[in-house]
Amino acid sequence: MSDEKPFLNVLKNRAISGRTPPWWLMRQAGRYLPEYREIRARAGGFLDLVYHPELACDVTLQPIRRYGMSAAILFSDILVLPQALGQEVRFETGEGPKLGDLDLSRLGYKKFKEVLSPVYETVSRIRGALAEEGFHQTALIGFCGAPWTVACYMVEGGGSKEFHKVKTLAYADPEKFQALLELLTEASITYLQAQIEAGAEAIQIFDSWAGVLDEDGFRRFVIAPTKKIVQSLKQKYPEVPIIGFPRGAGTLYLPYVQETGVDGVSLDPSVSTGWAAEVLQPLCTVQGNLDPVRLMAGGDGMIRAVEKILSDLKNGPYIFNLGHGVIKETAPAQVDMLKTLLRVS
Amino acid sequence: MSDEKPFLNVLKNRAISGRTPPWWLMRQAGRYLPEYREIRARAGGFLDLVYHPELACDVTLQPIRRYGMSAAILFSDILVLPQALGQEVRFETGEGPKLGDLDLSRLGYKKFKEVLSPVYETVSRIRGALAEEGFHQTALIGFCGAPWTVACYMVEGGGSKEFHKVKTLAYADPEKFQALLELLTEASITYLQAQIEAGAEAIQIFDSWAGVLDEDGFRRFVIAPTKKIVQSLKQKYPEVPIIGFPRGAGTLYLPYVQETGVDGVSLDPSVSTGWAAEVLQPLCTVQGNLDPVRLMAGGDGMIRAVEKILSDLKNGPYIFNLGHGVIKETAPAQVDMLKTLLRVS
Repeated sequence: MSDEKPFLNVLKNRAISGRTPPWWLMRQAGRYLPEYREIRARAGGFLDLVYHPELACDVTLQPIRRYGMSAAILFSDILVLPQALGQEVRFETGEGPKLGDLDLSRLGYKKFKEVLSPVYETVSRIRGALAEEGFHQTALIGFCGAPWTVACYMVEGGGSKEFHKVKTLAYADPEKFQALLELLTEASITYLQAQIEAGAEAIQIFDSWAGVLDEDGFRRFVIAPTKKIVQSLKQKYPEVPIIGFPRGAGTLYLPYVQETGVDGVSLDPSVSTGWAAEVLQPLCTVQGNLDPVRLMAGGDGMIRAVEKILSDLKNGPYIFNLGHGVIKETAPAQVDMLKTLLRVS
Repeated sequence: MSDEKPFLNVLKNRAISGRTPPWWLMRQAGRYLPEYREIRARAGGFLDLVYHPELACDVTLQPIRRYGMSAAILFSDILVLPQALGQEVRFETGEGPKLGDLDLSRLGYKKFKEVLSPVYETVSRIRGALAEEGFHQTALIGFCGAPWTVACYMVEGGGSKEFHKVKTLAYADPEKFQALLELLTEASITYLQAQIEAGAEAIQIFDSWAGVLDEDGFRRFVIAPTKKIVQSLKQKYPEVPIIGFPRGAGTLYLPYVQETGVDGVSLDPSVSTGWAAEVLQPLCTVQGNLDPVRLMAGGDGMIRAVEKILSDLKNGPYIFNLGHGVIKETAPAQVDMLKTLLRVS
């Protein structure tokens, strides 16, 4: 038996997970929990909560107190990075994020540390709180958005269905776009290093819009910047494992794993777990990929899907998770049901 | 040399395509063409155009007259099927489709033939017009939406970002959902048979939202109904090739091809063409997958992407296409540029 927390042991030592893998859920701290909604209402806006170390620490711990996951993940948002670099970011209720005009020449590090220091303080508080509340087996994950995905929001000015604006820029003016990606890559490295210094024990890089690119775009804008972040962090913190999540990458999950150097890869629900066991698991730890709608809908469909995932991935290094974030309409009791299926206490 | 039209020869005889494959573009008849916008304005609403055989035939031919593609595709919409079954369908300008409440017990065939007969008339007019205007090498493709994708619109009441409503129904109440899928499967078979009788020489089944399902869902709701449609059509029309397009299927393109019995598979832009050449092309004809943003953005990025696709797929049966529909902001001259790259006259 390793001394490591189970989540870290699977990532760092490629321990075989067997029938009871470590587990956590993307967006496990969120609106499906009444205690989250209570704190959220108290904090005011979403970003007020993100930048409030005491409250952000509290909501990070909420699901751990209820369910005892193997990992807690910093409560924050990927868009704090563009905000720290000087682009305006607003969250309007029920509307998703809105970003101000992008002016590359005006982005920079002048307010970077000032904006992000509450996030670092949150990380350090969470590490303390986990120990203090007796969660000695729960690891702390820090995170950022991958440069491509953050650039999507920065160029589109918010979410998008088709991402034509950012893709047109990337495909038609790769040099200008490369400058933005390089800035984001460098800023992400600084940001993640500070999270590690503050106590993050593992890192996840969320590339939610990786799937909208073609292969050439994926190699340039997803793989290359991620590889740079991984190499840079590994140089300084070789013991901190990194999970990549190029959502929707399809067959391109393989070159992503082969080339970025991530320790683990998080899979979206469309990925065949049989394929992942055969092709990805020999190369790195696999995490995922229950469809969050299965968790919300429950019943036989959820049981069957969980059993299939566990059975396909049990013979290699594996961390149970969803393939996307918990849906806000999910009943909290569904997560208890999931725990029963995972046979964790 | 085969007597067949090149598009059909590649699909039916698995002819090697080499450096100048047959080609067409999804949504080649559409808003990027000024002559389309002119007819569209004359017709009134979008559905008025769809159900107007003379005008629908004319817009189908427009791109062929300009560019001489290897295939024309019936100008229509996948939502004529729910409309013919009795669900209300409206297209509001700039908003996408809106569907009325879904009441399974009130769907049926009472007005099916009446609603769809203008579509069949359009098919027959197009076959005539292609011959009359001298496009003897251009094949005519008929199409429908796959049951899963049509069900998505019917249950969600229109487009959706996450498809939580339809997925919840499918995962939580598979029997009720199965009844809807079976109705759609049967209706699709009837609809496609009539298109073939009217002159369609090949069929494409569009499953635009196949990628939002997990593996179990994909097998039940994408593969199974598609297989049923293919088997049924093959029994009666063994000489009519069928292309499937399970957009976003990722690694699940392989079981789709293995199990549905399609003659060809259309790939979205995220699919690695190297992977497709190795894994899919030995099993069926491959079609795709230039990112439509590449076509719109042009320049070196487009040239490089086209060269890579052609080079990866030239040693097997292959049809050039986009990975998704032509974007309405695309300059028509971009398609001339594409033709030059494809070295077609």
